[in-house]
Amino acid sequence: MKKHIYIYSPSSAVRDKAAFKRGVKRLQALGHEVELDEAVLATHQRFAGDDATRLAAIARAAASGADVALISRGGYGLTRILDQIPYKAVAKAIDRGTEFVGLSDFTAFQSALLAKTGAVTWAGPAIGEDFGAEAGADDIMEACFDDLLGGQGEGTGWRMPARDSADLPAFRSIHDAVLWGGNLCVLTSLLATPWFPAIDKGVLFLEDVNEHPYRVERMLDQLRHAGVLGRQKAIVLGQFTGIRKVPHDRGFGMQAVVTRLRGLIKPPVLTGLPFGHVPTKVLLPVGAKVEVAADGRNVFMVWGHRHPHPH
Amino acid sequence: MKKHIYIYSPSSAVRDKAAFKRGVKRLQALGHEVELDEAVLATHQRFAGDDATRLAAIARAAASGADVALISRGGYGLTRILDQIPYKAVAKAIDRGTEFVGLSDFTAFQSALLAKTGAVTWAGPAIGEDFGAEAGADDIMEACFDDLLGGQGEGTGWRMPARDSADLPAFRSIHDAVLWGGNLCVLTSLLATPWFPAIDKGVLFLEDVNEHPYRVERMLDQLRHAGVLGRQKAIVLGQFTGIRKVPHDRGFGMQAVVTRLRGLIKPPVLTGLPFGHVPTKVLLPVGAKVEVAADGRNVFMVWGHRHPHPH
Repeated sequence: MKKHIYIYSPSSAVRDKAAFKRGVKRLQALGHEVELDEAVLATHQRFAGDDATRLAAIARAAASGADVALISRGGYGLTRILDQIPYKAVAKAIDRGTEFVGLSDFTAFQSALLAKTGAVTWAGPAIGEDFGAEAGADDIMEACFDDLLGGQGEGTGWRMPARDSADLPAFRSIHDAVLWGGNLCVLTSLLATPWFPAIDKGVLFLEDVNEHPYRVERMLDQLRHAGVLGRQKAIVLGQFTGIRKVPHDRGFGMQAVVTRLRGLIKPPVLTGLPFGHVPTKVLLPVGAKVEVAADGRNVFMVWGHRHPHPH
Repeated sequence: MKKHIYIYSPSSAVRDKAAFKRGVKRLQALGHEVELDEAVLATHQRFAGDDATRLAAIARAAASGADVALISRGGYGLTRILDQIPYKAVAKAIDRGTEFVGLSDFTAFQSALLAKTGAVTWAGPAIGEDFGAEAGADDIMEACFDDLLGGQGEGTGWRMPARDSADLPAFRSIHDAVLWGGNLCVLTSLLATPWFPAIDKGVLFLEDVNEHPYRVERMLDQLRHAGVLGRQKAIVLGQFTGIRKVPHDRGFGMQAVVTRLRGLIKPPVLTGLPFGHVPTKVLLPVGAKVEVAADGRNVFMVWGHRHPHPH
């Protein structure tokens, strides 16, 4: 089905224009109408235009009437403008059927929008790194994106790494929990601000890239000490990539971080979610109610409603 | 004057033992009695012993009766154990005259102690990187350390970089403000937890190392959005070192971060404080009342009381 996809740049400037063009062509080849925001390739310092330019781009994406508003890339820029984003206009656009999709720095936008309006957005691909990947767009990512476009695909499933499933005997299933989260570093950077979602009894998913396990642990500890982790029904860890181990670690790595965390909080800590800075990523409805069930190493996550807020 | 200096390891494992030994010898050469904690060279993963070992080391430092309890090094480890540190015992040791000195990861200890007890500690050197520096210990650092040992040295002064002084016409002087802060990344990692000091109308000093300016800005924005920066009488930026610029920055650097921050908050943002991950560092009383005055590019900071909490 042909859909209208609006591409804009709320964060860092697009530097890899070849990947960007490949991504646009890929979406066109899939039969879609791709509309580029007028500032999608703007640059100011490391940003895709100055703050006013990127705020205007967000407003144009909300006014586009597109089926999907897709970010060109993540990077950095949204935390600078969280006090000026037109949240109500974005929430209205979502009510009218525009799905906002992105990841990484976009976690700031998604979390703030959730905190301010309850509107649901999608943790998912970006145009350049995903649809424009040099090796070609990932099949699973594209299938999930297609499900979103078609109004299908009401859930996802994955297999936890063998080493992570043994100590989860008590976990069976979770109902009626709000799914939220995204990039750990970006989400943590919202703590104590008006844009951190106040969600209890939710399912918090987290991923990160290029963060040493000691920094991942420090961020998880901050969320834990702030009471956030203990209040959730489950913590779901996605992909933590780009980790450079050093000799100083002496066995301290993500496995040690996960094992320790499980001993410190009551909610189950599931792992292996296929989401993060990796080609194979599912799309996840941030702010939607989900059910989660585990059968040994197999985890299933189901969402019933695309728009839990009033129409 | 011969003083009793107790050296312990609350954070990362000491890996550069040559620097550690040089540091000990330097303090001995200055005439001091150096006592090494039994676990000062312990190792567990990347830590100086497991959590229980480092907690016991802190308790021994508090019970040592030393004139100064000095960390071997920073790194990572204190945020893991903030819920178990014997704060009252440390505060009592400080009341009895033991000065706790350190930096970097130690900011977590200093901030939590300030939040829990109001006790004053010193942002200052570590044994390995400072007293054991291969090029020899820095003269100014040693003079400041000597002032602390002698009960002298009730202030410090520095010259702001020329580019940073022009836009500070309104700033004259600040009185009766609590000095607090330290490492920006470590301090920010305490936001929303019980260990973040609730200090209004203070003087907040910040430094960091190996953090790109975009990450520095994101952390400053978090503090700003949390209301912390606007509540202070002044923000004092120390040394931000180890920054690797990349072509993607296109003019975005620390100067842009400082200029933008000055446009967003009311308190003056002073720069150039000789403190951070640099050899030439002053010692600063975290939790003490200070006065700050500026005369053009020259800044003076004076602290009147070493122990503002009751004896």
